[in-house]
Amino acid sequence: MADTDPIALRLARNIRAVTHDALSPKARTRAVIGIVDTVGVTLAGAGEDCVQLLLATPGVAEHDGPSALIGGAKRVSMLDAALINGTASHALDYDDFSSVFGGHQSVPLVAPLFALAEAEGKSGREVITAYAAGVETEIRLARAVHWHHYDKGWHPTATLGTIAAAGACARLMKLDEDATATALSIAASQSAGLKANFGTMTKPLHIGNCARAGLLSALLARQGYTASARAFEHDQGFFEVFNGAGNYDAEKLFEGWSAPWELEDDGLALKLWPCCGSTHAAIAAALDLRKDEGLTADDIVRIEVLPHPRRLKHTDAPHPRTALQAKFSVQYVVARALADGAVTLRDFEEDRIAEPRIAALLDKLVAKGHPEMGDSTDGQWAAEVKVETTDGRHLSKRIDDLMAGGRTMPAAPSALEDKFEDCAKRALPEDRIFSLFERMETFESVTDMAALGRMLLAPAVKAEKERISAATGEDADRLAETQWVP
Amino acid sequence: MADTDPIALRLARNIRAVTHDALSPKARTRAVIGIVDTVGVTLAGAGEDCVQLLLATPGVAEHDGPSALIGGAKRVSMLDAALINGTASHALDYDDFSSVFGGHQSVPLVAPLFALAEAEGKSGREVITAYAAGVETEIRLARAVHWHHYDKGWHPTATLGTIAAAGACARLMKLDEDATATALSIAASQSAGLKANFGTMTKPLHIGNCARAGLLSALLARQGYTASARAFEHDQGFFEVFNGAGNYDAEKLFEGWSAPWELEDDGLALKLWPCCGSTHAAIAAALDLRKDEGLTADDIVRIEVLPHPRRLKHTDAPHPRTALQAKFSVQYVVARALADGAVTLRDFEEDRIAEPRIAALLDKLVAKGHPEMGDSTDGQWAAEVKVETTDGRHLSKRIDDLMAGGRTMPAAPSALEDKFEDCAKRALPEDRIFSLFERMETFESVTDMAALGRMLLAPAVKAEKERISAATGEDADRLAETQWVP
Repeated sequence: MADTDPIALRLARNIRAVTHDALSPKARTRAVIGIVDTVGVTLAGAGEDCVQLLLATPGVAEHDGPSALIGGAKRVSMLDAALINGTASHALDYDDFSSVFGGHQSVPLVAPLFALAEAEGKSGREVITAYAAGVETEIRLARAVHWHHYDKGWHPTATLGTIAAAGACARLMKLDEDATATALSIAASQSAGLKANFGTMTKPLHIGNCARAGLLSALLARQGYTASARAFEHDQGFFEVFNGAGNYDAEKLFEGWSAPWELEDDGLALKLWPCCGSTHAAIAAALDLRKDEGLTADDIVRIEVLPHPRRLKHTDAPHPRTALQAKFSVQYVVARALADGAVTLRDFEEDRIAEPRIAALLDKLVAKGHPEMGDSTDGQWAAEVKVETTDGRHLSKRIDDLMAGGRTMPAAPSALEDKFEDCAKRALPEDRIFSLFERMETFESVTDMAALGRMLLAPAVKAEKERISAATGEDADRLAETQWVP
Repeated sequence: MADTDPIALRLARNIRAVTHDALSPKARTRAVIGIVDTVGVTLAGAGEDCVQLLLATPGVAEHDGPSALIGGAKRVSMLDAALINGTASHALDYDDFSSVFGGHQSVPLVAPLFALAEAEGKSGREVITAYAAGVETEIRLARAVHWHHYDKGWHPTATLGTIAAAGACARLMKLDEDATATALSIAASQSAGLKANFGTMTKPLHIGNCARAGLLSALLARQGYTASARAFEHDQGFFEVFNGAGNYDAEKLFEGWSAPWELEDDGLALKLWPCCGSTHAAIAAALDLRKDEGLTADDIVRIEVLPHPRRLKHTDAPHPRTALQAKFSVQYVVARALADGAVTLRDFEEDRIAEPRIAALLDKLVAKGHPEMGDSTDGQWAAEVKVETTDGRHLSKRIDDLMAGGRTMPAAPSALEDKFEDCAKRALPEDRIFSLFERMETFESVTDMAALGRMLLAPAVKAEKERISAATGEDADRLAETQWVP
């Protein structure tokens, strides 16, 4: 009977059965959106301290290899690329997430899959297939262990992501059943990450570690490394050790596998604004008001922001001064949305936070918990924004369905591109972003990931010119810009 | 009040207060023995598959760096040396252990400390100090979390070892209080390792990962990485997540710190024979009988081996054929001890297992649970061996105190050297072992660990000669052997 087979082996079979043809059109589209968005936030995060300090560590990414540092200046070993890009992808906490997973589904997967695919010349379709297998693995695992696992304090993106990354990499390598099962079991012994470290650089480091460990597990399994066949169901295995008896249901890992695909779930969401998710319904309401009513900042006399009380608790900051405060200020982000019709990464740099026209709007703005929003699970991400105009109108917009109804993926096709551009310009010259986005949008037709990888490198102008100059004897300043890109 | 300070900070203060002068003579001696023994078993383990497969992984130890691969042919980055040497040190499960720790105290520490000390030109004394701080950290942590942590299925050598390795590396780097605390908190988020993977290559990999993660945590903390100040006592921190409410006592981490040093504890033990610990009392009894009575194999008519019944359960293998079976055969190891007066690594190679003179002894040997040994915790590592001789004598020897009374460290000064030599010859030419052992014995006087590191490299004759030949133009075959050592 299949059911008495080891869990790792059963999961390996399911992972191997994921093919590009087996994916629904919706799942494929969602996969591409997830991959594009993750590359965008990785470009945006590449310059953050948590990444730069890791890069400055002796022994990390010091030598050339086959895999691009996304938004960086060189290619390094697969394992180092997974570590660095994984950390960068979560550095801003701006990456996509899943309400079922209780975590971020793409970041454990994109960094290791890109690193491996570049090194081994895989195609976009193969990456999509492996990514879908990874998403299915991590979210089904979450169904088996939540919410005990989550509430206890494990960081599921990292703990479950490590196992999913191993499975996805094994799929991309086309490992056989046994080796795939071994990769999963090795990964279970590397699963780590405490929520206590949220709000520090160690949170994105969890993802870098998870990406690297998942890839390492698959590489070792391919070479014949051994691990327990029953590392999941063993008395001292993953489920018992991480969750404990009575706090999980391993069969949920298999129930309903791929029918439908987790990628089709309405609980998947892109983060469209680079600030606390608890402010997003209020931003959406403000943007809708501005657009639907043709409002400008000058039209506004008074603003009332009414989020669900649970959301306001940690986002009530009437006069933010630092970037972190601004990211957790529903007042600031609503003022910014009404003033500019957008909330972008640039808006969280300190010179922007103190801008007089925003300060003027903040003086007209009051935030309080919505009096009619109760404790129900469905409505807890809702918010209402009310605006009184100079010509005496009383306008209001309420958003109840931010997570579940149509906003799970960008409503407007341009939203993904706008976000990508805003992210990418932190690492790449603006004139290269459009062609990169076009290439990413047609990811399914990428035949060689190594070629795409080259487009993800930031041109480190000076260093690269010097290198070429040293190698060729040409005057560095005379080198054409196109020669930067290695 | 100091007591309300964060646990990581309090632990950091304790770690920083460990100095060479503060250590007792006994603690210093134990530290040197632990370090020497660990270098020995690392040399012995370097050729094992779990190490060689890791070395063959793309991106692992590919490039030159400052830190020796112990028993290997080159120096690599600190992080790679920690990963590889950490795995090698536990590859044979022949390394020292602590009954309070429920694990192996030296292997999480020696690999990262050596890698760091070589790279940064530290002295033997500084390594001893950092090692003692690491042992104190990991065993006091064990007092805080055991036996719940152990019984649940965590591999304490890895989970607690990661934190201890971070603390020890921070001590060697002389980090300040805050950075040391940060290193500990980063490490808590990398703590991993399931007992389900015991008996596979993934078990020693746990130690390689733990060694690397501990070192990485300290390197990142030195550079200004951030982590939660309260990563241990947080609701979703180390103690709550790994153990859960009611299953730990964090204050035990601090109670009695350094008074006495954990290194002075009688629960520390070297493994003197490269086979299952459950056979060790029987081996000791057999060796004593042979020595005290001047026995040889020819004198023996009949042998009765009577271990504690709990020890026999998994070591009852009257006719072992493979190395693994022999390691878990109390019959084989007792026959070997009586025949040769020693049990060595070589005895677990397959041609030796089938040796006729051992087979002849096995025919005269019966093993059964000792009828008088009950369930008490104290006596469960006991065994008795009875021998009937050709001249009609009935001899017997019983060992009750293998773990706790005088055998915790080698009874004879030569035992450490014998084991070291048996281990080292698996990686190094025999004529180099004596001078290495001498250098290791006087470890406290090592002024530059980089020089010691060079002695730990195996001379990869062919490759190294070719490299020198290519660089110098000299005929490779004419190069003197002394030129091998890089």
